[in-house]
Amino acid sequence: MIAEIVATGEELRLGSVVDTNSAYIARELTDLGIHVTRHSCVGDDMDTLVSLFIEISNRADVAVVTGGLGPTEDDLTAAAAATAAGVELKLDLRALEAIENFFKARKRSMPSSNRKQAMLPKGAECIINPIGTAPAFLMKMGRCRFFFLPGAPLEVKRIMSDVILPKIADLWGKDRSVFLTKTLCVFGITEAETGERLEAVGGKFPGVRVGLRAVFPIIQIKLYAKGTDDTALQRQLEDASGWVLNKFGNKVFSVDGNAMEVEIGNLLRQNKATLGVAESCTGGLISDWITNVSGSSDYFLLSAVTYSNDAKVRILGVSADTIEKYGAVHEETAKQMAAGVRRISGATYGLSTSGIAGPTGGTPEKPVGTVCIGLATPEGVRGMQYNFPYQERWRNKSIFAITALDLLRRELLMKQDKVHIS
Amino acid sequence: MIAEIVATGEELRLGSVVDTNSAYIARELTDLGIHVTRHSCVGDDMDTLVSLFIEISNRADVAVVTGGLGPTEDDLTAAAAATAAGVELKLDLRALEAIENFFKARKRSMPSSNRKQAMLPKGAECIINPIGTAPAFLMKMGRCRFFFLPGAPLEVKRIMSDVILPKIADLWGKDRSVFLTKTLCVFGITEAETGERLEAVGGKFPGVRVGLRAVFPIIQIKLYAKGTDDTALQRQLEDASGWVLNKFGNKVFSVDGNAMEVEIGNLLRQNKATLGVAESCTGGLISDWITNVSGSSDYFLLSAVTYSNDAKVRILGVSADTIEKYGAVHEETAKQMAAGVRRISGATYGLSTSGIAGPTGGTPEKPVGTVCIGLATPEGVRGMQYNFPYQERWRNKSIFAITALDLLRRELLMKQDKVHIS
Repeated sequence: MIAEIVATGEELRLGSVVDTNSAYIARELTDLGIHVTRHSCVGDDMDTLVSLFIEISNRADVAVVTGGLGPTEDDLTAAAAATAAGVELKLDLRALEAIENFFKARKRSMPSSNRKQAMLPKGAECIINPIGTAPAFLMKMGRCRFFFLPGAPLEVKRIMSDVILPKIADLWGKDRSVFLTKTLCVFGITEAETGERLEAVGGKFPGVRVGLRAVFPIIQIKLYAKGTDDTALQRQLEDASGWVLNKFGNKVFSVDGNAMEVEIGNLLRQNKATLGVAESCTGGLISDWITNVSGSSDYFLLSAVTYSNDAKVRILGVSADTIEKYGAVHEETAKQMAAGVRRISGATYGLSTSGIAGPTGGTPEKPVGTVCIGLATPEGVRGMQYNFPYQERWRNKSIFAITALDLLRRELLMKQDKVHIS
Repeated sequence: MIAEIVATGEELRLGSVVDTNSAYIARELTDLGIHVTRHSCVGDDMDTLVSLFIEISNRADVAVVTGGLGPTEDDLTAAAAATAAGVELKLDLRALEAIENFFKARKRSMPSSNRKQAMLPKGAECIINPIGTAPAFLMKMGRCRFFFLPGAPLEVKRIMSDVILPKIADLWGKDRSVFLTKTLCVFGITEAETGERLEAVGGKFPGVRVGLRAVFPIIQIKLYAKGTDDTALQRQLEDASGWVLNKFGNKVFSVDGNAMEVEIGNLLRQNKATLGVAESCTGGLISDWITNVSGSSDYFLLSAVTYSNDAKVRILGVSADTIEKYGAVHEETAKQMAAGVRRISGATYGLSTSGIAGPTGGTPEKPVGTVCIGLATPEGVRGMQYNFPYQERWRNKSIFAITALDLLRRELLMKQDKVHIS
C-alpha cells in the first residue's frame, strides 16, 4: 500500500510557517507499516490543487491532505477535490449539524460563513471533527482513497488517531501488521561508532529493524518490530533493547526516549538528593533545561550563573588567587565553583561549568570548545577538562551542558548501585 | 518565473525529521519576487527521484533541491539527476579539489568514499561548498534550471546566500525587480491589533506590502518593497518603517529584526551599564538568552536562579518574613530579589522574576500565568505583577522572560532620552 501526503496553505507555500503535520502523518503511517512515497506542499490555488489531486489519484492507494477546509474564500480544498473527481459540492447535513453543535456547545451563534464548511464533494463521507469547526472527509478518486483534514496540528492529531489511522489499518484487512517501536538515548559516542556497534542487531534479532537519529548532542537508537502478534513483538523489542543496553553500557542514558534532564530528575528523586549548579560558559542553559521539567522545584535549589570572575569570587567563594594563577577555565576553578554552589545552596550535589563557548575568546592553550566541569558530592569534589571540536556557540553550550549532566548521572547511578549492594 | 522546491532523504520521507530547509528556501525565493508553486519531499529512491526531476523539468523555471549529495550509497541525487537528464556521471576536478582541500584544511586525510561526491552529471556546473564536503551544482533540464544543494541546514543557508540567490537574481536579467525587506519586532500587543493598526500602510505607501509573523511571544512586522530602483525602494521602506514606529511607539523593540536579548545588549553597552538577574520561574531562560549573544560577558555579570525559597533568602538576602507574609510570587519578593542580585553582583541593574509557569502550582488568587517582576536601578527598585492566560510551561517561561527584559529595555531607553536631553 502506497501513501502520499499533501499540505496546503499559502503560509506553507511561502515558507512563513514550517509544515510539521506532514512529518507527523508520515511517522504514523510508517508505524502502521504503510510506505509513504511523497509529501507535497502547495498553496491555495485551484488549478494546482486539482492537478495534484488527479496526479495522486493515479499514483497512490492512500492520500492524507491537510488544510484548506476553513470558512473563508481562500479555503479551496473541498471545491478542488470535487473538481478533480468531476462531481458537485453538496450540503452534507451531518457535517452541518456537527458545526452547529460545535457553536452551540460554546454558547455562540454560528456565523453564516461556517455553513460553507458543510459543503462536501458529492459521495464523500463526512468525518466529524471533535475539536474544531472544519469537518474532515473521505472520498475515493481513481485508485486512491483521499482523507481530507483541517490544517491545525491539534485537530490533525486528534482526527488522525481517532478516525483515520483505525480506518487505514482496517483497509489492510487481515494482512494488517502491528508496528512497535522503542527509543534508547545515547550520549558520548559518535554516530558512526554507534552504527558500527549496532550492525549485529539484524542478525541476532531478525524481526527487529534499527534506526539512528542524531539530535545534537545526543543520538537516538530506534528499534522497530513489525508483525501480527503484539506480545511476541513486544518481547523481541525488549530482548533487542537489553542487548543494546549491554553493548553500550551506561552510555545509554534513557531506555524510554527521555531527555537527559528528565532522567536526572528521576535519579535525584530516587536518591532523595538535591542539586545546585554554578554555570559560567553554559550561561543558564543547564538550569533552563532542568526547570523545563514540571516538579523540578522538588530537587533543584539554585543555579548561580556567574559570568564574571568577580561573581565567581564573591558569590561562590572561588579564591581570587586560583583565578589569577590558573584562569577561570581550569579544573581547579571548576572544583571551587562546584563546592561553592553546593555550600551556598545547601544541596546534596554541586555541579559547575567554566569554558569557552566561542566563537571568540579562544587561545592556543584553551581553544574554543574547551570546558572544565566540577562535581561536588557529599564525599568530595573533582574537576575535569574536556575539549570539543565545535566553533558554534550554541553547539558548545549544548554539549558542555549535557556533558556536565552526564557526569552527575553517572555519579547518581554509582551511588544507587552502592546502595543496592549494601 | 515559477520555482519548485524539493527535499530528499529517508528521514524526511519517514517523518523522523521535520524539513525546515524548504520553508527557508521558499521565504528567500519569495523575497526575490519569485513565485514558488510547490514543495515536494521524497526518499532516497532512484525511480521516484528521476520521475520527480522529469516532472519538474516540464513545469518550473527554477528548482532548488536539497539532500542526497553525501558520500554513502544511499545518496542518489547526482545519479538521479544524470539519469533524468540522460547524461553520464563524470568526475569534476574542481569539485574533487575542493573536497580534498576541505580535508587538508582540517588536517585529516580524505576517506576514499568522499571521491564519489565529485562525480557530477556531465555538463553540470560545480558550486563550491565553503563549509562542507558535498559540492553543490547547477544544471539545466527541459525549461528548468536545477540547483542541487546538500541537506545540512547550515550549508543550505550559506550556499543559498553566497551563490544561489545572486545567481537566481541574475536570471531575471533586465526585467529583474529588486525586492527589499525590513523587519520590525513588536512585543506587548496582540496579532489582531497589530494587523488593525497596520491597515493604513497600503494606502499611505502604495509600493509597500506588509506581512505579519507571530513568533511567540513576539510579532515580526515585515515591510516589502518591489521595483527596479534600489534607492527609491530603500526610501519607501524607511518612510513606511518610520510611520510604523510612530504608530507603535516603544512597543517596537527592534527595527532590524533583532532578538530582544541583542537589543538589550546594545542598550546596556550604549549606557555603559551592567546587569545581574535573579530568576525563579524563568529558571535560567533569561540568562541563557542573554549569553547566546557573543560578547555578553562585557555587560552580563550574574544570574542567580534561586528556585528554592531558602536560596532566595540565603543568596539574595530576601527577608524570610516577606516570603512568609506574601509568598514567593509577590511584588515585594520580586523587589527584594532584584535589589539583592544588584547588590551581590555589583551590577548597574538588577532584574528578577518570580511566578507560576505551570502546568501545576496555580491557586485561585495566583493562577498559572502569574508573574512578579522586580527591577532595581541606581535610583530605586520597583515591582510589578502580570497575568498571562497560558497554561503551557514553555509559553509562560518565554513570556515571563521577555516581559522582564522589555521592562529593562524601557528603563534603558528612558535613561538614554534623559541623557540626550540633559
